[in-house]
Amino acid sequence: MENQIFELQYAMDTFYFLVCGALVMWMAAGFAMLEAGLVRSKNTTEILTKNVALFSIACVMYMVCGYHIMYGGDLFLSTIGELDVDQVLADSAEEGFDGGSVYSGASDFFFQVVFVATAMSIVSGAVAERMKLWAFLAFAVVMTGVIYPMEGAWTWNGDDVFGMYNLGDLGFSDFAGSGIVHMAGAAAALAGVLLLGARKGKYTANGVNAIPGANLPLATLGTFILWMGWFGFNGGSVLKLGDVSSAHSVAMVFLNTNAAAAGGSIAALITARMLFGKADLTMLLNGALAGLVAITAEPSTPTALQATLFGAIGGVLVVFAIITLDKLRIDDPVGAISVHGVCGLLGLLLVPVTNGDVSFSGQLIGAATIFTWVFVTSLVVWAILKAVIGIRVSEEEEYEGVDLAECGMEAYPEFTSGK
Amino acid sequence: MENQIFELQYAMDTFYFLVCGALVMWMAAGFAMLEAGLVRSKNTTEILTKNVALFSIACVMYMVCGYHIMYGGDLFLSTIGELDVDQVLADSAEEGFDGGSVYSGASDFFFQVVFVATAMSIVSGAVAERMKLWAFLAFAVVMTGVIYPMEGAWTWNGDDVFGMYNLGDLGFSDFAGSGIVHMAGAAAALAGVLLLGARKGKYTANGVNAIPGANLPLATLGTFILWMGWFGFNGGSVLKLGDVSSAHSVAMVFLNTNAAAAGGSIAALITARMLFGKADLTMLLNGALAGLVAITAEPSTPTALQATLFGAIGGVLVVFAIITLDKLRIDDPVGAISVHGVCGLLGLLLVPVTNGDVSFSGQLIGAATIFTWVFVTSLVVWAILKAVIGIRVSEEEEYEGVDLAECGMEAYPEFTSGK
Amino acid sequence: MENQIFELQYAMDTFYFLVCGALVMWMAAGFAMLEAGLVRSKNTTEILTKNVALFSIACVMYMVCGYHIMYGGDLFLSTIGELDVDQVLADSAEEGFDGGSVYSGASDFFFQVVFVATAMSIVSGAVAERMKLWAFLAFAVVMTGVIYPMEGAWTWNGDDVFGMYNLGDLGFSDFAGSGIVHMAGAAAALAGVLLLGARKGKYTANGVNAIPGANLPLATLGTFILWMGWFGFNGGSVLKLGDVSSAHSVAMVFLNTNAAAAGGSIAALITARMLFGKADLTMLLNGALAGLVAITAEPSTPTALQATLFGAIGGVLVVFAIITLDKLRIDDPVGAISVHGVCGLLGLLLVPVTNGDVSFSGQLIGAATIFTWVFVTSLVVWAILKAVIGIRVSEEEEYEGVDLAECGMEAYPEFTSGK
Repeated sequence: MENQIFELQYAMDTFYFLVCGALVMWMAAGFAMLEAGLVRSKNTTEILTKNVALFSIACVMYMVCGYHIMYGGDLFLSTIGELDVDQVLADSAEEGFDGGSVYSGASDFFFQVVFVATAMSIVSGAVAERMKLWAFLAFAVVMTGVIYPMEGAWTWNGDDVFGMYNLGDLGFSDFAGSGIVHMAGAAAALAGVLLLGARKGKYTANGVNAIPGANLPLATLGTFILWMGWFGFNGGSVLKLGDVSSAHSVAMVFLNTNAAAAGGSIAALITARMLFGKADLTMLLNGALAGLVAITAEPSTPTALQATLFGAIGGVLVVFAIITLDKLRIDDPVGAISVHGVCGLLGLLLVPVTNGDVSFSGQLIGAATIFTWVFVTSLVVWAILKAVIGIRVSEEEEYEGVDLAECGMEAYPEFTSGK
Repeated sequence: MENQIFELQYAMDTFYFLVCGALVMWMAAGFAMLEAGLVRSKNTTEILTKNVALFSIACVMYMVCGYHIMYGGDLFLSTIGELDVDQVLADSAEEGFDGGSVYSGASDFFFQVVFVATAMSIVSGAVAERMKLWAFLAFAVVMTGVIYPMEGAWTWNGDDVFGMYNLGDLGFSDFAGSGIVHMAGAAAALAGVLLLGARKGKYTANGVNAIPGANLPLATLGTFILWMGWFGFNGGSVLKLGDVSSAHSVAMVFLNTNAAAAGGSIAALITARMLFGKADLTMLLNGALAGLVAITAEPSTPTALQATLFGAIGGVLVVFAIITLDKLRIDDPVGAISVHGVCGLLGLLLVPVTNGDVSFSGQLIGAATIFTWVFVTSLVVWAILKAVIGIRVSEEEEYEGVDLAECGMEAYPEFTSGK
Repeated sequence: MENQIFELQYAMDTFYFLVCGALVMWMAAGFAMLEAGLVRSKNTTEILTKNVALFSIACVMYMVCGYHIMYGGDLFLSTIGELDVDQVLADSAEEGFDGGSVYSGASDFFFQVVFVATAMSIVSGAVAERMKLWAFLAFAVVMTGVIYPMEGAWTWNGDDVFGMYNLGDLGFSDFAGSGIVHMAGAAAALAGVLLLGARKGKYTANGVNAIPGANLPLATLGTFILWMGWFGFNGGSVLKLGDVSSAHSVAMVFLNTNAAAAGGSIAALITARMLFGKADLTMLLNGALAGLVAITAEPSTPTALQATLFGAIGGVLVVFAIITLDKLRIDDPVGAISVHGVCGLLGLLLVPVTNGDVSFSGQLIGAATIFTWVFVTSLVVWAILKAVIGIRVSEEEEYEGVDLAECGMEAYPEFTSGK
């Protein structure tokens, strides 16, 4: 009967990982729709292609070597399917089974691999409308196969892999990845954007030209998808469901994740209203995402009110970050660097407010380490790609739209498009 | 070992609430897409803004005071995160643990809060294309913070809060909220629509002008999202999963919810074909939603055939309701009052057919109480808003589209739009 | 306490079915969006109508008689809601409860019924843009009520129903339905397409005219929805979650399903790049779906690398299949026959590579049986429909678009449409 209880717990925790992982996979659709809605129609097919392809590349590269680098699993996951059930049961009988998480290793991989794809999805929006597709996909191979797994190894799994440096020993904590996933994605994006330059016509002698997105219902849908998927992203990061304390923690994470998104969206809506005089939908959407990113580093310890306020800080911050980046002439068509980078850092710095085990200095060191590693390595990779195959489409291709140049087809061939 | 079984049950029932709650949250995307697809392109940005913002407002207001009014939880949920696991286990050991639902209070809040947002989402479609955005959001604050929680307290949690009146004592039953959520939303919408008046050009001396929605794939997507989310809406309302009887009940609810949607859509398709000679997609979609609303008051006791027929009655009724409202010159651009109000009432009245514990008179009293409360208080709030800040945009703004007036941006800036 | 463990397992396995079933239901939205994105704007309302209506018809017909034919359940599911909990518990106490799956029959029906709808969804895309709506819906009645349930009875439930022929006895195995669902849908589609003929203007003396889809973001969204829903499709087909071995198997199925989709999309992207010189988004999407179909016959036994490779084979194959069908002048606007038919067969033939209990000859016999049954019966039904009510719209209606002819409304009335 002991064994039967163990088996149920194993099944429950495995299923919990799989459901949460499926929700995180769904975020790939959210990024695709968000970005497709915020670019111009002539660049829509290409960004859709990028989003599907980068997800697939992430899945393959993390299987090939990423999971190995980050957690020490076998290359190509060659043994992940093998499971000696009798041995598992015998071990549990001997050691007792309430001492930790029990679940299938395959469910853990599935949950982890969709995180890699999330980090990579962040990049695609920032470099939209002027980057060469194949250069981007080549970067994706390195980012998902090596760059992300390395910093993942130093944080979520420090000492088990190759005896590596472990940021946790320095008082660093990042529950579900405000820094490890979101700021990391933004750092890679920033490096690319700096080498790539702004879109033609975005910054002129007269200042900043707004380039409106072609399809705001898609952008809104993408935000809702991300909001929903974030329940899996943060909720699954408790890593265990099957006891009272863990289950309650998962529930608080769901509640706080939702509260932070709500707080972020309202704060951004009000901020934009005060600054621009209008209810700016794109800021509202970015505010929701900013709140989600800000709570991700620690969604389990805040109260609901704190989570709402943390989200609201993110929502205000993201509006000013977007304005500031435009002043600096750093062209990020979808606001990804502001949402995931600036608010990712915010999330890390908010952790010590509600989690006494985490130090402010540890968070700073961790943030600096992650940012420096990802930014510098990305810069090197982008620079190599720029030298070897080029990373920017020709001026004419940019004018015509990258859809025709890269994909040979329009996203909306029957609708009038304003080139 | 007793404790371990208890812990598993606690975890399972908590997770069940969270998964169902995530599906109900997803319904917010469904309403947003449905409404964005059924309005004209010039009013699309605004309705997207409304849908995201109202969801966020609902989450904040229900945390601030709504949950307190409805179920007696702490204001600001100040203690919901606290859980003395040892005490929970000790209590369960003493009292036994198969006597009722066991789950995290945070999961209960999460499941409840998304219901509030659903009620509010119903309003936004009915007042589309002519209401001032900020007046709408102000109404949302009152609706989600007070109006809905009050009637929720009289029904789903009567006697525990402030010793209030309990409709259940009169033989009223509303399993997942045909009346408490859907008809309530429709009552608030009707009050708004009556004070707001019809869209310019909708009703002329020559009769009713059809104003087609701009994007039917979006409307269809929204319907599918709602259909899917409804499994959480009704399925989670069993409130317990972790024993044979409850699990079977949850399964029957899923089966019947699906059957009612199927019955409703087919019935509406056939009805529209007979009346108009064409396969009217918008009626098909409304029929599916009508079936879903109609089964919501009692999805656990009907057989699959009964559920299909109940849905079909809803599907026929909604077509005639939409026609009748147009004859009365009550302008509801998305059919929300017909779907959620008329079929919500239908759902309440169908409960006694399969549930012997519920009386027809109790359902009538309950329906009258909910409708009167929500309609009258909403009318007062809308009237105050009308007097103080105005609820209707100017005629010129309505002609130009509320997107430019309220949000300062078009939803589809590159596509030809027919104002 | 034995009983309590049993009750938890019953609840867990029931919930697992319901969650997986909800994901498969969601695939209906995926097919609707995919097909709506790949047809021209003038045929969009009609294909949306078809997709919602066929799902509803599948749900009703499988309840009326399909489930009875396939698994021997009661006509109209008249007793599925009845459950004698005491009897269930007594049985489990007597027989022990770890001998097999324990779950609510209602959850099983829910999981099965959404599969029927999937099979039918495959047909709608292939016959798009020229078939009469009501002829299609009439075919859906027969397909979901009889044709699919019959071949389902010979495979997933052979000997229990009417003492029928059982393909499993011949060494045939199809885990989640590469053949039983996907190839069957494609066979019905092929029969329809052959009788229906190609769209006007698709094939001319000069060769094949590409007719681009009107809305590629929708098509991409549809693919992501299908990808997500497939976790339920394959994951739920383990049929049991609640022990270590089953849970691990479910986890491997999730992992491999995802890996195959990733492999398929990358392979198709590269193949299309080599053939056409561009990153063809529609081939990328079809490649992901091809990978998913190819792994569906056996997602539990391959390693992650094998699953990726199997998916990649599907991704290459689907590109050549689409080209070949066009050479044969078999007009399939969305590539459904190539994705679901050709790669469904591939999936069946790949099973013996990793599953030693299955024979290559058994797979061939099974594939031939399913294809022959579905193709011939479908051909008969389509032929009868053609003779009695006609299956093709008039040339003028096709030119104007079936939306106006069949549904009386445009999908995008405000946007320029290129007829």
